[in-house]
Amino acid sequence: MEGLKEIGKILKESSKQLNIASSEEKNVALLDVSKAIRNNMDKILLANSKDIKLARENNMKEGLVDRLMLDESRVESIIDGIQTVIKLDDPIWKSDKVWTLKNGLTISKMSVPLGVIGIIYESRPNVTVDAFALALKSGNAILLRGSSTAINSNRALVAAIKEGLTNSSIPTGAVEFIDDTNRALVDEMLKSNEFLDLIIPRGGGDLIKYVVKNATVPTLETGEGNCHLFIDKTANLEDGLKILINAKTQRVGVCNACETLLVHKDVAEEFLPMVEKAIKDRVELRADAESKAYIEAKLATEEDYETEFLDYILAIKIVDSIDEAIDHVNKYGTKHSEAIITENLKNATKFQREVDASTVYVNASTRFTDGSEFGFGAEMGISTQKTHARGPVGLEQLVTHKYLVMGNGQTRK
Amino acid sequence: MEGLKEIGKILKESSKQLNIASSEEKNVALLDVSKAIRNNMDKILLANSKDIKLARENNMKEGLVDRLMLDESRVESIIDGIQTVIKLDDPIWKSDKVWTLKNGLTISKMSVPLGVIGIIYESRPNVTVDAFALALKSGNAILLRGSSTAINSNRALVAAIKEGLTNSSIPTGAVEFIDDTNRALVDEMLKSNEFLDLIIPRGGGDLIKYVVKNATVPTLETGEGNCHLFIDKTANLEDGLKILINAKTQRVGVCNACETLLVHKDVAEEFLPMVEKAIKDRVELRADAESKAYIEAKLATEEDYETEFLDYILAIKIVDSIDEAIDHVNKYGTKHSEAIITENLKNATKFQREVDASTVYVNASTRFTDGSEFGFGAEMGISTQKTHARGPVGLEQLVTHKYLVMGNGQTRK
Repeated sequence: MEGLKEIGKILKESSKQLNIASSEEKNVALLDVSKAIRNNMDKILLANSKDIKLARENNMKEGLVDRLMLDESRVESIIDGIQTVIKLDDPIWKSDKVWTLKNGLTISKMSVPLGVIGIIYESRPNVTVDAFALALKSGNAILLRGSSTAINSNRALVAAIKEGLTNSSIPTGAVEFIDDTNRALVDEMLKSNEFLDLIIPRGGGDLIKYVVKNATVPTLETGEGNCHLFIDKTANLEDGLKILINAKTQRVGVCNACETLLVHKDVAEEFLPMVEKAIKDRVELRADAESKAYIEAKLATEEDYETEFLDYILAIKIVDSIDEAIDHVNKYGTKHSEAIITENLKNATKFQREVDASTVYVNASTRFTDGSEFGFGAEMGISTQKTHARGPVGLEQLVTHKYLVMGNGQTRK
Repeated sequence: MEGLKEIGKILKESSKQLNIASSEEKNVALLDVSKAIRNNMDKILLANSKDIKLARENNMKEGLVDRLMLDESRVESIIDGIQTVIKLDDPIWKSDKVWTLKNGLTISKMSVPLGVIGIIYESRPNVTVDAFALALKSGNAILLRGSSTAINSNRALVAAIKEGLTNSSIPTGAVEFIDDTNRALVDEMLKSNEFLDLIIPRGGGDLIKYVVKNATVPTLETGEGNCHLFIDKTANLEDGLKILINAKTQRVGVCNACETLLVHKDVAEEFLPMVEKAIKDRVELRADAESKAYIEAKLATEEDYETEFLDYILAIKIVDSIDEAIDHVNKYGTKHSEAIITENLKNATKFQREVDASTVYVNASTRFTDGSEFGFGAEMGISTQKTHARGPVGLEQLVTHKYLVMGNGQTRK
C-alpha cells in the first residue's frame, strides 16, 4: 500500500474534479459502479467467504458473522442502495439564501462539497459501498478504513468500484481504501488535517470515543443511542404500550431502539403490569425498587440506566414528575432520540423544548430516527453531536457552503 | 477560584434556563447588563489602568497596549455593541423546514442553543462583553478565558455583567470567567466535553493551532486570513487598483486584508507599475522575478506567499492562467476570503466554484467578509473551517437544531 500522505494527495486532487462534476456525470459514474459490482459478483463473494472463514476460525459470534456475510441477494441490496442514491437530488451548488447589501453587493450562500471525508467503520461490508455512493453524490472524495475482519470483502468491493469509475468522468481516486489493518494508520488518519475535512466514526461506543478523543480532523460522532420513552400521567396507555413494544423489540440492535422506560408515578400501577404482560417473555426487565411493587423484575443498577443494551433488556424507572423524567433523560441519554407519550399539550411542548437530543418525539416510536424514514433517502449515520449536523446524516449534511459575492468595484468604507 | 468542574456545573445548569428564556427576558437582561457596565465605569477603567501599567512595565509594544486600553468612549462603544445585539432577531426556536411523512408524522427542524460555549481570546477586553452578549442572545451560557494581560479589566467587566444579571430572570451563571492565568486550566478546558459544546479560539495563528490540536471539544477555527486578489487578463484595471488599495491598506491588521496580489501575465506590464505608483510609499512590495521586470521590489520568498503579514507588505506574483491563480490560492490560502477582478463571466464563475474559501468575491474588496457588513449585526469571529459554520459567525451560527416529531401513535414497520 502507498503511504497515507500519497493517498491523501490522490484524494485531494480527485476532490477538485468532484467539486466541478455535474449531477449527470456523478449519476452516470454511480450507474457504472453498480454494473461493475454486479459484474464482479463472484470475486466479491469469494473474497467475502475468506473473511467468513477467518472469522469463524477466530471464533467470531454468529451474530457478528451474519453482519459480515454477503450473498448474492445482499450484494443486490447494495446495488439497490446505489440506485437510491442516483435518484436523490444533488445537494451541491444550491442556495437557500441570496441577499443584496445596500452597496449593491449580492451574496449567495451556496452549498459545496466538504472535500475529502474519512470514514472508520466496523464489520458490515455494505457500508463500503453506501458511504462511497453518498460521498460521490455530494461531491466528496472518500477514504475508507473498514474493519480488519472485512478486509478481503472491502478490497474486492473497492476494486469493483474503481473498475466502474475507470471509464467514467469521475477519477478512480474519488475513493481510496486503507488496505492495511495496522492500527497506527488509523492514528495517522485522525491527524491528517492537510487532506481530510471530516472523519465519521461508525461503530461501537469505544471506537467513537477513541476517534473523538484522538482526532484533530473535525469529527462527526454517530450512533450511540441510549434512548428513553416517558409515559406521562395523561398518556394514552394503549398507544404507550404499542409504541414501547415497537421501540424496544422491533429491532433491538439499533441505535434508535428504546433502552429505558420512564413512567409517571400516577400511572405506574396500571401501566407497568401491562408492560410485563406484553413483553416479559421476550424482554428482561430491570426496574427500580418502586416499580418492583407492581411487576417482577431484576433490580436496576445505576449502570443499567447508563447502558445502551442493544439487546432484549429494558430498564424501568418510576418518576414523580415530568421534570424528573427530563432530568433523567438529560443525565443518562446520549442526545439521540427521546419520546414522551402524553395527551397534555403543555407537557408535550415542555419535553420537546427541554430534552437535549437530536430528535424528540411526542406519541411516536423512537425507531423513526433514520435517514430513509425522515425522507433523506439514505444516510451515513445518525449524528449525536450538536455541531455541523445533528440527527440523520444524509446528502445535505455532507456539504459545507461558500459565500459568493458579486460586485462591480465595491470597496469598504 | 472554584475548580473548572464546578464552574462547568454552574454553566450547564444556567444553560438549561437560557434554553427556555424568552426573547424579551434575554433582551431585558442585556439592557440591565449595559446599565451595570455604565454604572461600573470607574471600576472598569481603574482595573484597566492596572493592566495597562503592568503591560508597560513588561514592555508590551504600544500597538498592543492600545488594543488593551479602555477609556470612557471605548466602554460606551462596548455598551453600544450590546444595544446592537438587543435589536437583532432571536435565532432560537425557529424553523425553516417542517414536513409531514406519509404515516402522518410531522417533523420540524427547530433551531436551539448549542448549550455552553467556551471562548479563548487574546488581549482586547471588548471581546469579553461582545462574546457574552452574542452567547446570551442565542441562548448559550459562556465560559470566558481571556488573556492574562487583560485579567483585571476582564474581572471588572464580568463582575459588572453579573451585577446586571442579578435582578434579571437570567442566572448570573450564564457567564463564567477563568480568573486564573494558569495555562493548565486552558488544557483542562479543551477537554471538558462533559459541559462544553463548542470552543472558539480567537487570536493569533499559534493560539488557534494549539486549540485545534489539543481540544477534544468541537472547535470553531477563526481568524487566520491569507487572502489573495487575482487580476485576470480581462480585468478593469482601474477597479482592480481601487480594490487592491482598499483590500491591502484600508486596515492592515485584520484577517480579511489582502496579503498577495496575483496578476495575469497579459496585464502585468500595465498593472504592476500602476500598483507601484499608487502604494509603494506605504507598502513594501515583495515580488517574483517576473514581476521585478516591471517594478522595483524585494524578491518574494516561498515564506512570503505563506505569510499573513497583517502589515504594510504585499506579496506579488505573475501567473500564466486563471488555473495557476486558483492553484496558488488553494495552496497558500487559509480558506478565508479571495477575490478575482475580471470582466469575463466564465472566469468569474470558474474562480468562485474552484477556489476553496469561506467567501469568494468577483470585482469587490475582500474586506467585506465581516458579520456587520454581511448584515448579521455582530460576529463572534470568521470561521475558516468547513464544518458547522463557515465565514462570519453571527447569532445564527451559534445554534444547533433539534428535530421535533409529532405523532399520534405511529410505530415503525
